[in-house]
Amino acid sequence: MQKTFFIGIDIGATRIKTGLVTHDGTLVSKDNFETSRLTSPGHFLEISKRTIDLLMKTNDIERKSIGGIGVGAPGWTSYSDGVVHELTNIPGWHDIPLATLLRDETGFPAFVDNDANVMATGELIHGAGRGYRHFICLTLGTGVGGSIVTEGNIWRGVHGLAGEIGHMSVDLNGPHCACGARGCLERYVGNRFIVENALAKLKERSPSGGENTITKLSDGNPKNVTPELLSEAAALGDDIAIRVWEETGHYLGVALAVLVNVLNPECFIIGGGVAKAGEFLFGPIRRTMEALAMNRLGEKTKLLKARLEADAGIIGAATFARNCAEISYRPS
Amino acid sequence: MQKTFFIGIDIGATRIKTGLVTHDGTLVSKDNFETSRLTSPGHFLEISKRTIDLLMKTNDIERKSIGGIGVGAPGWTSYSDGVVHELTNIPGWHDIPLATLLRDETGFPAFVDNDANVMATGELIHGAGRGYRHFICLTLGTGVGGSIVTEGNIWRGVHGLAGEIGHMSVDLNGPHCACGARGCLERYVGNRFIVENALAKLKERSPSGGENTITKLSDGNPKNVTPELLSEAAALGDDIAIRVWEETGHYLGVALAVLVNVLNPECFIIGGGVAKAGEFLFGPIRRTMEALAMNRLGEKTKLLKARLEADAGIIGAATFARNCAEISYRPS
Repeated sequence: MQKTFFIGIDIGATRIKTGLVTHDGTLVSKDNFETSRLTSPGHFLEISKRTIDLLMKTNDIERKSIGGIGVGAPGWTSYSDGVVHELTNIPGWHDIPLATLLRDETGFPAFVDNDANVMATGELIHGAGRGYRHFICLTLGTGVGGSIVTEGNIWRGVHGLAGEIGHMSVDLNGPHCACGARGCLERYVGNRFIVENALAKLKERSPSGGENTITKLSDGNPKNVTPELLSEAAALGDDIAIRVWEETGHYLGVALAVLVNVLNPECFIIGGGVAKAGEFLFGPIRRTMEALAMNRLGEKTKLLKARLEADAGIIGAATFARNCAEISYRPS
Repeated sequence: MQKTFFIGIDIGATRIKTGLVTHDGTLVSKDNFETSRLTSPGHFLEISKRTIDLLMKTNDIERKSIGGIGVGAPGWTSYSDGVVHELTNIPGWHDIPLATLLRDETGFPAFVDNDANVMATGELIHGAGRGYRHFICLTLGTGVGGSIVTEGNIWRGVHGLAGEIGHMSVDLNGPHCACGARGCLERYVGNRFIVENALAKLKERSPSGGENTITKLSDGNPKNVTPELLSEAAALGDDIAIRVWEETGHYLGVALAVLVNVLNPECFIIGGGVAKAGEFLFGPIRRTMEALAMNRLGEKTKLLKARLEADAGIIGAATFARNCAEISYRPS
């Protein structure tokens, strides 16, 4: 039987978001919890149970209408057995059989994958990836998440660890990255490094701290400078912000050209906070990718903006649950 | 009916090799022709027909025992319709429907793919790739050929152009590559650049041209320095040759670590002339890959030497024909 609703849980660095999503990918209702307040995996189960009960009650939904729970977790997860091996930035999770625990706690079928993969699943089924079978999703934020879709399925790799596009080195002599390599893409286009680039350019322009659009928008406090603020400044014509997005786009374009040469996908789908910079970012990405990819393939490879936006994690996780549940229920 | 023999044709930069190969990948007999003497695609058909007739006659093989012809071509080919769009370093081939022409000329089913893909097919079925489903083949020579195998099939990409591992940039500010990008892997580990590196190191050591193992082996003539000679020099303990292989291995290791992070394959299979340097090359590749890949995956990803060696192109092309012919003949 086709179920009507699926639960999506998006474990993020700042918030854990839980939502009730229809079979066709519409988010009906959602709730969230501060990640920093999470004390343990057991606590996560308790909160999830309570939130799901609340969402069902508020929306007057019966248990039998729920097809399953999907979780997108930021870290190393085993999709096949639903185990979370490690979470990035959330301590205390080691080899937790989350799918099993969540199923036991709630009584619903539960499935776990990493956050980049569930977002790609959401875009594939309900978002910018509809109609494409071979594409690569990038989620730009604190880190750079990646997921590779081929023949309409996520390419997970042998140990489930494929897709680390943020850790493609674009300069073997570049700055050291936390992963141990040098010149990783994330080291140039992760939120923190975008902001550092802007602050360095501001300082270079006026070492004593003169006024410009960025300083005005940030009330002169460097701590207020974020990628969102830099998007705003670029839209107001600020040349430093525009240059920062150009450089960020150039680094992304270099990595995308390599991916075009190696994997020859139909398109790239780019989401996450940084993607809000729009053409200030997408223009330079496209120019560099077209200039560097072989066989003029850069011109044939589409560059799309992710469509599910802020709720991409919840909708993706619910869609992932839908896919898993429907495959499991398929008569064999 | 399962056929006993397949013809493999390997179009190389210096020689076109044609061989008669058994169903289980044994090369029975072969012949070759200098690529530089080739005047046109029509000439190629004529020579191929004559060579195949000769191989059949010499080995007393009947037409009905031949299952098909496979061609590995260095360039842009369309696997699905057997068209050769462009050949690298061989002028005059533009959009040639080679599979159709070869079938018309010989009466045998014919199939065309690029050289890196047929070599990967050979290694997959008869070589180092047996028992692996997800791996990446690299063929080191004038250029760096690449082919990606997933679920036991070649990943061709949307336009059939995937696998250009030689054109992964490892340094976005590196030296210009003929493809238009900068710092491509091939620009460091292609034959010519390995030799240039050795010659530069020799000059640095003794600007006036002193004696060492490399100069002795090459009779003091820089034109005689080849990767093969550098392998020999390394085996004799020459420190410059050893350093050249270390640096070559380091560049390869950087690219392989990126591929581990992005695709998480089971193993890499490395073949081609340069692979003859053995541990002088493989040791540094492995060390760099292990140091740079995430999640300690470098230690879990095997580094294998291609097994089909000098005849890899012929055996691969014949094996590719076998696969295609048997799929075509499969009752539907």
